[in-house]
Amino acid sequence: MMAGERTVGEVGELALLQRLRDRLHRWQPTEPGCLGIGDDAAVIPAAGDDQLVVTTDMLVAGTHFRPGEIVPADLGHKSLAINLSDLAAMGAVPACFFLALGLPPSLPLAWLDEFWEGMFSLAAAADVRLLGGDTVRSAAIVVAVTLHGCTRGAAAVCRTGGRPGDRLYVSGTLGDSALGLEIITRRHGGQPFDERLTMPAAALEDSEDAAFLVRRHCRPEPRLALGRWLAENRVASAMLDLSDGLLIDLDRLLTAGGPELGAELELARLPLSAAYRHLRQPEWPVAGCLPALVGGEDYELLFAVPPAREPVLAAASSRWGVQVSRIGVLTAEPGIRLRLADGRCRPAAGLSGFEHFS
Amino acid sequence: MMAGERTVGEVGELALLQRLRDRLHRWQPTEPGCLGIGDDAAVIPAAGDDQLVVTTDMLVAGTHFRPGEIVPADLGHKSLAINLSDLAAMGAVPACFFLALGLPPSLPLAWLDEFWEGMFSLAAAADVRLLGGDTVRSAAIVVAVTLHGCTRGAAAVCRTGGRPGDRLYVSGTLGDSALGLEIITRRHGGQPFDERLTMPAAALEDSEDAAFLVRRHCRPEPRLALGRWLAENRVASAMLDLSDGLLIDLDRLLTAGGPELGAELELARLPLSAAYRHLRQPEWPVAGCLPALVGGEDYELLFAVPPAREPVLAAASSRWGVQVSRIGVLTAEPGIRLRLADGRCRPAAGLSGFEHFS
Repeated sequence: MMAGERTVGEVGELALLQRLRDRLHRWQPTEPGCLGIGDDAAVIPAAGDDQLVVTTDMLVAGTHFRPGEIVPADLGHKSLAINLSDLAAMGAVPACFFLALGLPPSLPLAWLDEFWEGMFSLAAAADVRLLGGDTVRSAAIVVAVTLHGCTRGAAAVCRTGGRPGDRLYVSGTLGDSALGLEIITRRHGGQPFDERLTMPAAALEDSEDAAFLVRRHCRPEPRLALGRWLAENRVASAMLDLSDGLLIDLDRLLTAGGPELGAELELARLPLSAAYRHLRQPEWPVAGCLPALVGGEDYELLFAVPPAREPVLAAASSRWGVQVSRIGVLTAEPGIRLRLADGRCRPAAGLSGFEHFS
Repeated sequence: MMAGERTVGEVGELALLQRLRDRLHRWQPTEPGCLGIGDDAAVIPAAGDDQLVVTTDMLVAGTHFRPGEIVPADLGHKSLAINLSDLAAMGAVPACFFLALGLPPSLPLAWLDEFWEGMFSLAAAADVRLLGGDTVRSAAIVVAVTLHGCTRGAAAVCRTGGRPGDRLYVSGTLGDSALGLEIITRRHGGQPFDERLTMPAAALEDSEDAAFLVRRHCRPEPRLALGRWLAENRVASAMLDLSDGLLIDLDRLLTAGGPELGAELELARLPLSAAYRHLRQPEWPVAGCLPALVGGEDYELLFAVPPAREPVLAAASSRWGVQVSRIGVLTAEPGIRLRLADGRCRPAAGLSGFEHFS
């Protein structure tokens, strides 16, 4: 390789995406009414006031999962769930999907049957149909799902609409998935992802808490009803789903909202599950909140709510089957700041989350 | 692995697809007006008399290509072209696409720039826009494209409509891609795919013929104008694109048409390029026609034309930028028969094409 020739791994995912946008722009200037790359999903005008919403996600063995560490039914569920989560984050109603599968020839058919079972049972529950796909030979398992949804008259909720003063909300609890992954990895004798997340040996044993956290990692629940309600009732000004960790994903929402947009998060308000709280160790960084701040794959919704719409949200609570928590506020000062329990603030910079190519 | 536990590789792609259909049927009975798995693309009702046509294809390094044997611009072109070919085979007008990319961290950025250049230049030529995607880390390069098109009032041409007496037509020339791949592989010191396809050493040297065949393999040209014309003018009763070889793909068209449907192919009518004819050796099986019969990745259109519509086709010839050849006829006798130059017939059974998991 030539000196100075950089690689995909050296520049990382965000720079790669920017590079793609630059190249793409030469070939296709933006088309009005059509939201392309840069949100959870693309929005395409359809009949009447409907819009087609499309998202695609790829899972690769060795990168996103190790085949021995997730049962096939969970992988089937998760492959579809993470795409449903993208549609939830747009406030769309899912409709149908397409599945491209790369499979090693040595894979037992029983594995595939369980994978399909996990995928199709979630598809039935979410009322989406498999309409096509491709199946090819591959050394590593690859699952690529493309999912269609529609807005049915409600405007899709993009990442761009957040304004200073809007309150930040999150669904469910944070950090469970990352803790579940740590438990799975350490049980299988793998290196911890984060050495700072000390865990007593007992935490790795079978327990209700461990099972809960592992399940949160392996079977994320797309927040479709909540996302849809927020769109229909015009409660959320901006929304995305948490795939790479709260700080990274919040930064995306801020970047999409404009150069001056920042946020303040209250640590004491971060919603933590009972299992998380039981497991938390005094030495974990940021007052034990590190997994909630940077842990990936929670697939909860992060959304901004203008103060005038907060009463509508409050009046409807408990109708979506998942709790909703206010965790902070958007500010006119750029950057993300963390308000500690003692009232002091610290910048969040330096606490990083998942980076796809590092 | 348990004794008697079968693998993906043991059952092969067709059995795998049937297994998927069986499993799927438990969860989602067929929906009227919505064509799902089993054709070149899915057809979804849209506004008015329009339909959304969607196809997805995945290319994996090591299975579909070797990164050292295809330049990145060609791979970018081909990844999109094979999906455009699926839409051509439905008679649809392509609209937009979604790209999921698995990339090794060690991949040079220059590789990616060339890949995008190849993909986006074809996208611009075909007037399709990239609207979304996903980029992930992967040990092997994986390219998954999902492409949308629309029928704009013309009925999509499915695989199912062929009837005994319909004439079989094919676009372009056959077998070039397979010969191109043989040249590429042997140039790189790889094992021939088919030992019976003897080639003089001179055939592997740089020449116009070799360059033509390699180009046919690396840069397939989707037959969009022809496919669209056939749909708009209701000339084709059934159609698909040739991805796995004439005999395998014809068998799919016959199977889709019903249990009694068969075909007779006239060897003397198979359209062969000048480069193919120059390279052909006397010892190649089936009178030198083996690559044309079983070679994969031609991405030409195979279609059936009712006799009453043949004059319309004949009157329009030479308006699609590609030749169209009648190669045989559909019969009420099941199976595929080959009519030899001396007038005798032989069954095609036993001559096989590409099998994805073998």
